[in-house]
Amino acid sequence: MSVVNLDSLDLSVCDRGGSMKSVLDFPKQFDEAMNRAFVFDLPMMRFGSVLIIGMGGSAVGGDILKALLKRRSSLFVEVLRGYELPAWVGEDTLIIGISYSGDTEETLHSCEEGLKRSSKALLLSSGGKLEEMALSKGIPHFKLPSGFQPRAALAYLSVPLLVFMERLGIASFQRELEETLSILGEMVEELSPEVPSPSNPAKDLALWLYGSVPVIYGDEGIGGVAAYRWKTQINENSKQPAYACLFPELDHNEIVGWTTDRFKGVFKVIALRHSSENRRTSLRYSVTRDLISDKVGGWREVEGRGKGETSLLYSLIYFGDFVSLYLAYLNGVDPTPVNIISKLKDEIKRQK
Amino acid sequence: MSVVNLDSLDLSVCDRGGSMKSVLDFPKQFDEAMNRAFVFDLPMMRFGSVLIIGMGGSAVGGDILKALLKRRSSLFVEVLRGYELPAWVGEDTLIIGISYSGDTEETLHSCEEGLKRSSKALLLSSGGKLEEMALSKGIPHFKLPSGFQPRAALAYLSVPLLVFMERLGIASFQRELEETLSILGEMVEELSPEVPSPSNPAKDLALWLYGSVPVIYGDEGIGGVAAYRWKTQINENSKQPAYACLFPELDHNEIVGWTTDRFKGVFKVIALRHSSENRRTSLRYSVTRDLISDKVGGWREVEGRGKGETSLLYSLIYFGDFVSLYLAYLNGVDPTPVNIISKLKDEIKRQK
Repeated sequence: MSVVNLDSLDLSVCDRGGSMKSVLDFPKQFDEAMNRAFVFDLPMMRFGSVLIIGMGGSAVGGDILKALLKRRSSLFVEVLRGYELPAWVGEDTLIIGISYSGDTEETLHSCEEGLKRSSKALLLSSGGKLEEMALSKGIPHFKLPSGFQPRAALAYLSVPLLVFMERLGIASFQRELEETLSILGEMVEELSPEVPSPSNPAKDLALWLYGSVPVIYGDEGIGGVAAYRWKTQINENSKQPAYACLFPELDHNEIVGWTTDRFKGVFKVIALRHSSENRRTSLRYSVTRDLISDKVGGWREVEGRGKGETSLLYSLIYFGDFVSLYLAYLNGVDPTPVNIISKLKDEIKRQK
Repeated sequence: MSVVNLDSLDLSVCDRGGSMKSVLDFPKQFDEAMNRAFVFDLPMMRFGSVLIIGMGGSAVGGDILKALLKRRSSLFVEVLRGYELPAWVGEDTLIIGISYSGDTEETLHSCEEGLKRSSKALLLSSGGKLEEMALSKGIPHFKLPSGFQPRAALAYLSVPLLVFMERLGIASFQRELEETLSILGEMVEELSPEVPSPSNPAKDLALWLYGSVPVIYGDEGIGGVAAYRWKTQINENSKQPAYACLFPELDHNEIVGWTTDRFKGVFKVIALRHSSENRRTSLRYSVTRDLISDKVGGWREVEGRGKGETSLLYSLIYFGDFVSLYLAYLNGVDPTPVNIISKLKDEIKRQK
């Protein structure tokens, strides 16, 4: 049992960095990001492939775009999290470089390389060297509002990509974005700190997870994108390990790891479900649960909300953002600071 | 401490399924796979993208091909592990469908869909419905030798893809394949069961890992492909959980999970290194190790061997195959049978 009571939180003590405020504001940020993206001065461009370059919280927008274009567009989309541009990137590729700070080393390096191969580009940052790069090369730059942690700026880092694709005639998102906005608004009412734990499913799940290592299962589509986001949010906000795996692939290997119940005291499974799953994958979830649920510390499911894939995806992500904060409070850590990353960046920068 | 002594193994008892024999034969299989692929009746084809369809052990060949083409070819390559073909797959896409048994549900489904969109295809299986599909549609079929577990047939499931790319004029692999073969031969001498544990680094690593959950770190290139293979081999052979994460992305989230040492008794890190890493990524390995090694149960490194990327990659994979078997013996499990997958497949098949 944690000594923290989730129903009598003093956020000015347990959340000095204001992560909960930022998560509660997400629907507002989502709306603002949409509006700003629709009026952004976007040049018409034609391209056959898209490379999104970003790291951590700044790369999730790329995952979201890729997953939501998978069924809608014949564009080849890849997300690059690193230093090494694939050889296929060329003149016909739209380069989308995203770094919240604008100073992420890997992103700057790969954007620099990418811009040697293609003149079609869009850069997103709150400032930094990425903005300078855009200005000096005459590349459209979408300026993100400052004052966020990168992972808390998800609306600004992802929604504009969908709007830009809509405006470039690649795929239609507007109706789904509007549905999403309304569902996110409902979720705030249900998951915010004032709602006590028995009727607040995010608190309830955090209490259940406390003390364990969550393993999050999603599907090959949007569920997998949400599962990876949950993993990273639990790492960064709750400051503890967590892992993610995808259906149907996990039925071919991961599942055999649960032949033993030796680690039953360590791991708990959260399955992220949604109505857009492949029918056979839905069946796999239930068969897998029956086979492993007595070998892990438990199995719980979270269901995406809404009709469109956009809403299903963002609602799964948003639920996880709340869970990661409640779990942080239970763990007795302030969700906002990520000191170990700051130390790492300083050390990396020192060693040129 | 395990009750098993790795230096006095009776393989006829602890390895009834013959997994070690199959791993010891890997260099021979590699050679045979090369030779068979060079004489295979391969039609000349032109294409702009490649989609490799496969699951589990049958998909690793796709990962290997994608990683090794990344710097060498402007082809767009993607590996599909699932039921859902991306919308970009079309007439200009080469479909490579791989299923060791030839009866993997997801692979059959996605190949069926893929062949509606493109007539350029290659199918690999030891028989089953995938072979029938090839015969009935007049598609080239590379027949894999039977009698293996899919994960143990890696040479046949991966080497031909490299040879085919060479023969189609996409990229050159022959010299690297020859280097790889010679290095794999050296590794057998060093890692086989007759070599006692103090001088056998695979036994040594398995003894160190015993009782813990391995987290395997690789890089965005070939190291990441090997890390995922290690994860799945430990799942399937050693019958226990294991996870994989990639540099540099893990420095943006995973690393924060090691702010706490609460799970120090559970996890141990293995970093897969190689001489083809990005220079900045190499630095990240050492800085990350310094920051987290007292928060996890320990950090050990395994180094890829040889000069070419092909040899670096296969040598990392091969080392992990040995480790996963020794860990299985320590865990007191026969590496070969994967009963839980058989149960799952039966149940899935029953529910049409």
